[in-house]
Amino acid sequence: MTNTYYTTQVHGEYQIQNIGDLTLEEGGVLRNCELAYRTFGTLNQDRDNAILVTTWYSGTSKIMEDVYIGEDHALDPNRYFIIVVNQIGNGLSSSPHNTPPPFNGPRFPTIRIGDDVRAQHKLLTQYFGVESLALVVGGSMGAQQTYEWAVRYPDMVKRAAPIAGTAQTTPHDKLFSETVIDAITSDPAWQSGWYKNSSEVHIGLRRHAKLWGAMGFSTEALKQKKWQELGFSSIDDFMVGFLENYFLPMDPNNLMTLASKWQHADVSRHTDGCLESAMARITAKVFVMPIDEDMFFPPRDCEDEARLISNGQLRPVKSLWGHLALFGLEPAYVEQVDQLLKELLAL
Amino acid sequence: MTNTYYTTQVHGEYQIQNIGDLTLEEGGVLRNCELAYRTFGTLNQDRDNAILVTTWYSGTSKIMEDVYIGEDHALDPNRYFIIVVNQIGNGLSSSPHNTPPPFNGPRFPTIRIGDDVRAQHKLLTQYFGVESLALVVGGSMGAQQTYEWAVRYPDMVKRAAPIAGTAQTTPHDKLFSETVIDAITSDPAWQSGWYKNSSEVHIGLRRHAKLWGAMGFSTEALKQKKWQELGFSSIDDFMVGFLENYFLPMDPNNLMTLASKWQHADVSRHTDGCLESAMARITAKVFVMPIDEDMFFPPRDCEDEARLISNGQLRPVKSLWGHLALFGLEPAYVEQVDQLLKELLAL
Repeated sequence: MTNTYYTTQVHGEYQIQNIGDLTLEEGGVLRNCELAYRTFGTLNQDRDNAILVTTWYSGTSKIMEDVYIGEDHALDPNRYFIIVVNQIGNGLSSSPHNTPPPFNGPRFPTIRIGDDVRAQHKLLTQYFGVESLALVVGGSMGAQQTYEWAVRYPDMVKRAAPIAGTAQTTPHDKLFSETVIDAITSDPAWQSGWYKNSSEVHIGLRRHAKLWGAMGFSTEALKQKKWQELGFSSIDDFMVGFLENYFLPMDPNNLMTLASKWQHADVSRHTDGCLESAMARITAKVFVMPIDEDMFFPPRDCEDEARLISNGQLRPVKSLWGHLALFGLEPAYVEQVDQLLKELLAL
Repeated sequence: MTNTYYTTQVHGEYQIQNIGDLTLEEGGVLRNCELAYRTFGTLNQDRDNAILVTTWYSGTSKIMEDVYIGEDHALDPNRYFIIVVNQIGNGLSSSPHNTPPPFNGPRFPTIRIGDDVRAQHKLLTQYFGVESLALVVGGSMGAQQTYEWAVRYPDMVKRAAPIAGTAQTTPHDKLFSETVIDAITSDPAWQSGWYKNSSEVHIGLRRHAKLWGAMGFSTEALKQKKWQELGFSSIDDFMVGFLENYFLPMDPNNLMTLASKWQHADVSRHTDGCLESAMARITAKVFVMPIDEDMFFPPRDCEDEARLISNGQLRPVKSLWGHLALFGLEPAYVEQVDQLLKELLAL
C-alpha cells in the first residue's frame, strides 16, 4: 500500500540499509529487513563517540532530530557520531505497509523489542564498525529498546538514558495499549487489517488519538489549558488539530505492530522472568529519567527499576505536559534532558 | 425494553415515587419522573437526622447499602434517617430503558446533575417532609450531586461529604468520559441507540469496561496484583470476571445518559461560570474526600476546590485501588470513610 506520509518529504532525509534476513523471537523471519536510519557527525578514530538514538511509538528519526539533536543539545554532532535508527514497523524501516505480499499488512510477522535491538546491533557492528556505544538514549518505546540494549549487550553500552519508559511493561501499560489496539481494530473499516487505504480507518485512528489524549498529558496540563501555548483555541481544537492530525496519516497495521511490540517489552525474557537478574546484567552508567507528571510511566515504576541497576540513578524530568512532553512541547523539558545527558556523558 | 438486571432480584428492595413532571435544565420535560429510593432508620421528631446518599455512574442504592450503610458504619440507621436516591438514568429511577415510547432509548431527554438534585429536593421536601439534611454524601457522580446540593440549597445542607469527585468536571474527566461514550457508540450494534436488546451491544460494553480498567484502578494496584485479594487469577481474568461482568448486563442508553450528565456537572452554572462564587455559596461543613491514588479525580483537583469552601477541609482517603475503591474493595478504605464521616457528623 502506498502512503505518502512515510516519505522523505515528511520525515526528512534518511538512509536505508538492508541487513538481510532477521530471525524473529516469536518465530518466523523478517526477510530483507530494512532499517531506515539517519546519522549526524563523524565516528572518531578511537570509535568511542557513537551514540544510538532509538524511536518511540509512532515516532521516527525526524522528531528525534528536531527535538534532541544539534549543536545546542547534548547530542551534539560536532562531538558525537549520532545514529538514529527507526524501529521496525514505524513506517520508514520494514513495516506492514511497505512489505510486499504475502507478508504485507496484517501478515507482517510479530516483532519484539529484542528483534529491533539485534537488528540495530547488526547495523552498527557490521555496517558502521561500531563496537562501543558512548550512550544509548530513547523515550517511551525508545526507552524499552535502550534497556534491552543495556541488558543484552552490556559490554557495548557505556551509558544509557531511558526516558519516560520501563524495562518491563507494567500491567497498566499493557492494559492501556490494549485499549488503543481496540480503538483501531473495532473500526468496521479495519477489515481484519485488509483495508485498501489507511484513510478508510480514520474513525478508528481518531478514537485511538483520543485515548492518547486522555493518557498522554497530565490532568493538570489540560486543566491549565497548556494547549494554548501551542496555539490551539480549545481542548477539542487541540485533540483534533494536534492528536488526530498527528495519527491520521499513519498506517493502522504499522501502529498495531508497534503496539504489540510495546506490550511485550520485558528484559526479564533473558533471565527466565526474573527482572532483578536481568537488570543486574547492566554495567552501563544509567540515568533513569521518568517525567514527573507521566500518567502511564509514572516515576514510581521507573524508581523501582532504577534500584535494580548497579550504576543507575533516578533522575526525573519535570514537565506538566506528562508523557508527551517527549515531543519537546516546551523548552524547559528539552533543557532538562540536555542537562542530564551532558552530565551522564561526562561520567 | 425489558432488562432483568434492573430489578429487586439484583438490586434488593427499593421504593418508587412518581414526583410528576420534571422540567429540565437543557429544555424538555421528564414526564412522570420516577425516583427509586431506599430508606433506612426513622426521621426523628426534630426532623434533623436525615442523611441523603447519592449514587455514582452505574451504581444504585444496592451498593451504597452494602458498603456504606449499617449499624457498624457512620451511616447508622439507629441514629439517622438515611435515604438513598437512585440518580435518573441509573436504571431504577426513570431511565432510557424503562421509559415508554416515544421518549425511550436514545430519545430519553438530556438530564443534568441539577435536574437530579431538584428532583431529589422535591422528593425529600414534599414526600418526606425533610427540610434539613444532617449530611449529603456520595462518591464520584454522587459527589457531583453532593456539591450541587450544597451550592443550590445551602440552607438545607448542614454537612456534605463529596468522595472522589469534583464540583466542576475537569477537562481530563470530560475527555475520559468521551472515550467511554465512544467505546459504546462505535459498536455497529449500537445502531444509534436503537438496538433491540442491550446484550447485542456487548462488544461495546466490553470495550467500555476495559477503559474503566485502565483508569479506574491505580497503576500500582495492577502492578501489585491486588485483584488477587478479590479471588481473580490474572489481570485478564479480573478485567473480564469483574469489570465486564459488572457492565455487561447494563443498558447502554442508560449509561450514555449518565455519561452525558457526568461530563456536564458544574456548579458554576449557578454563577455565570465563576467557580469561586458558586463554591462561596456553600455554608455546609464539608469534608472533601479524594482518594489518594485516584487517577481521574486526583487529590490535586479536589484540593483546589476545597480551598474555595469556607467550612471545607481536605480529608483524603488512602487506597491503592484508586477510584474504584468506592466499591468497598478493601476494608481499610471503608474504615477510613466511616471514621471521617463520624468526625464530620460530630461537628
